[in-house]
Amino acid sequence: MAVHLHPLSPSDLLPIPGIQLGYAMAGIKKADRKDVLIITLTPGSSVSGVFTLNRFCAAPVQICKQHLAQTTGIRALVINTGNANAGTGEPGLKDANAVCDAVAALLEITPEEVLPFSTGVILEPLPVAKIITALSAAKANLIDAGWYDAAFAIMTTDTLPKAYSSSQEIAGVKVSMSGVSKGAGMIHPNMATMLGFIGTDIGIDAQLLNTLTKEVADLSFNAITIDGDTSTNDSFIIMASNQCGIYIDSTEHAAYAPFKAMLLATAQDLAKKIVRDGEGATKFMTIEVKGGANLEECKLVGEAIAHSPLVKTAFFASDPNLGRILAAIGYAGIQDLDVNHVQLWLGDVWVAKDGGRNPDYREEDGQRVMSEAEIKVTVDLGRGQSERTMWTCDFSHEYVSINADYRS
Amino acid sequence: MAVHLHPLSPSDLLPIPGIQLGYAMAGIKKADRKDVLIITLTPGSSVSGVFTLNRFCAAPVQICKQHLAQTTGIRALVINTGNANAGTGEPGLKDANAVCDAVAALLEITPEEVLPFSTGVILEPLPVAKIITALSAAKANLIDAGWYDAAFAIMTTDTLPKAYSSSQEIAGVKVSMSGVSKGAGMIHPNMATMLGFIGTDIGIDAQLLNTLTKEVADLSFNAITIDGDTSTNDSFIIMASNQCGIYIDSTEHAAYAPFKAMLLATAQDLAKKIVRDGEGATKFMTIEVKGGANLEECKLVGEAIAHSPLVKTAFFASDPNLGRILAAIGYAGIQDLDVNHVQLWLGDVWVAKDGGRNPDYREEDGQRVMSEAEIKVTVDLGRGQSERTMWTCDFSHEYVSINADYRS
Repeated sequence: MAVHLHPLSPSDLLPIPGIQLGYAMAGIKKADRKDVLIITLTPGSSVSGVFTLNRFCAAPVQICKQHLAQTTGIRALVINTGNANAGTGEPGLKDANAVCDAVAALLEITPEEVLPFSTGVILEPLPVAKIITALSAAKANLIDAGWYDAAFAIMTTDTLPKAYSSSQEIAGVKVSMSGVSKGAGMIHPNMATMLGFIGTDIGIDAQLLNTLTKEVADLSFNAITIDGDTSTNDSFIIMASNQCGIYIDSTEHAAYAPFKAMLLATAQDLAKKIVRDGEGATKFMTIEVKGGANLEECKLVGEAIAHSPLVKTAFFASDPNLGRILAAIGYAGIQDLDVNHVQLWLGDVWVAKDGGRNPDYREEDGQRVMSEAEIKVTVDLGRGQSERTMWTCDFSHEYVSINADYRS
Repeated sequence: MAVHLHPLSPSDLLPIPGIQLGYAMAGIKKADRKDVLIITLTPGSSVSGVFTLNRFCAAPVQICKQHLAQTTGIRALVINTGNANAGTGEPGLKDANAVCDAVAALLEITPEEVLPFSTGVILEPLPVAKIITALSAAKANLIDAGWYDAAFAIMTTDTLPKAYSSSQEIAGVKVSMSGVSKGAGMIHPNMATMLGFIGTDIGIDAQLLNTLTKEVADLSFNAITIDGDTSTNDSFIIMASNQCGIYIDSTEHAAYAPFKAMLLATAQDLAKKIVRDGEGATKFMTIEVKGGANLEECKLVGEAIAHSPLVKTAFFASDPNLGRILAAIGYAGIQDLDVNHVQLWLGDVWVAKDGGRNPDYREEDGQRVMSEAEIKVTVDLGRGQSERTMWTCDFSHEYVSINADYRS
């Protein structure tokens, strides 16, 4: 069902010097499925992360935050699917720590140098023994070229693996970057992805990477939504292995701007892939809100449109029932919105002019755009200069089926 | 598909002295369908209304507010289905005024004494000629016992008509009350129903009725949600015809408290009926949030649970995938929520204790409750004494079908 998301080929993905990845099949929820992943980092790497704002954040998320605060040298990540280890209280923390301890022992590092991640069903105890048993197989599989299998190993209800690689010359040096992500429901800004990992061989100051991670997340993973449900486990991690010969120590460094652009392109690609493979998605929608008095109100309007089940089902039906978009703009929360200044375009078709139906709008023009698989909605609020772009998908029968059947 | 909502019988509904109702078939969207309704009120009646907060509020809503502010003596309501007259700009206002003018001419009253209502598709011009042509038939049909047909005449995607009547002795006098409402999608607090009308033969001061209408709406129509979409046309109207011999002039009046209770019971019944007939509904859920530090945070949590597509699809599947409820509590927006004090019950089953899975919780107990058609979810936030109850329904394949097909 995914929208313009193509199957992955191993040759699409570049190895990143200093980063190795190894999977295992632990049988957490299903047999014969890659469901455990270890990522190792060479000493001297910088790692930064942003995490879910959900107050019921999962045990591994809590431990990630602790470890990132405690140590400057993260050396390994361990990820399992099939169980979120969320809503599990004190035993959940104990379980996540047990996994970190086991990884540390196996790799001869300290537990604080390990970041744990879990994704899957909430409120069920983590099958720790299965995961720990599988770790040695994951270690044995560690290779530079592990990104391809990693993309599979972090999937849950995703129908296709999601990954992106690129390399480019920055300040005279070849810099490489690879990333993987997974969706595909319980997707909402702050954070938007349950899991996203990007690795690069550049070197960068840890504080600078922290700031950059937040900026990039806001314009990529925090700009997508599938169903408006903010997960308990969302995590986005950037790993910089400092192997290519560039070390960025300030925003003034010649490599900073091109590196940031490269990072943003990678994160946006991975985020959009999550939307393309949103549960039951048949349409990919770009929602551009401009003319806002401030960024916040552009976000409100973008999210109202992107979350509306009525808008999303109309897109599923390819029905230009565009009054539903006006209704969403109207309830988004801008108290003093003067609707007489609002314009709405569907693709290149001007639908609503000055708050009402554009006299020149013809249903068949709307229908033509609605029939496409990739659709852009543009709203001009007529209040100022701020703008915000979001990406979302439609709402289909398949979404209901997937989420009604998820545990069976 | 409606949940425990029974077909209406004409004998269920009491006539209200001083109020007459008459329908017509104008062929607005479909032929042979009751789609226009006139309600007339005897001189000396009090009328009060609350309306959608959507900034794209429909032309008739704007005119209702004007007329209620301009005149003390509303004498007639005119309602059409099949077209919302929303997102229609200046021509929409002209159209709604033309309908009021026609009703006024027909009934020999002034246009300011008429309140117009429309419900249906947004962004399409109102077929004024069809409506005006049908008005004389509606006038010819005016009867005291018109509530039964009125319940049908205001339906759109509703599968069953919604109405409620009761009479009781208040301060030694028999007081009667009848009401009708319609849903069934684009339903969200502020306002929750697209249309709700209650008539009673009591007399009441206009200002007092205004205050009472807001209070009652908050605990009934503003406490339900189907899909979180706030309509452009929501309106809730109370009409008091002053025919039974009681006139309430202050909150100290002996009849005030019993009348308020009667009104609340009627409004809650009509509101819950909208949920029972929510688009595609197979389950009716009562969500009680207690232990909040204030009412606002109880609302946030109740709405987060009630809006979550993941929670709603799990209920559709009768799957006790209850971690999704914890996730919704966690992202509801209480920044300082200590999840270790949160308790969750499904019916009488204690699912989450102190923020984690209750050690005594058994899946089969959760499954037993989930299999029922009416389910209560209770959340204790462990922070204070405030509480709030909401009503919602599940999210099924049928919802997608209805909204993907709505215009066809």
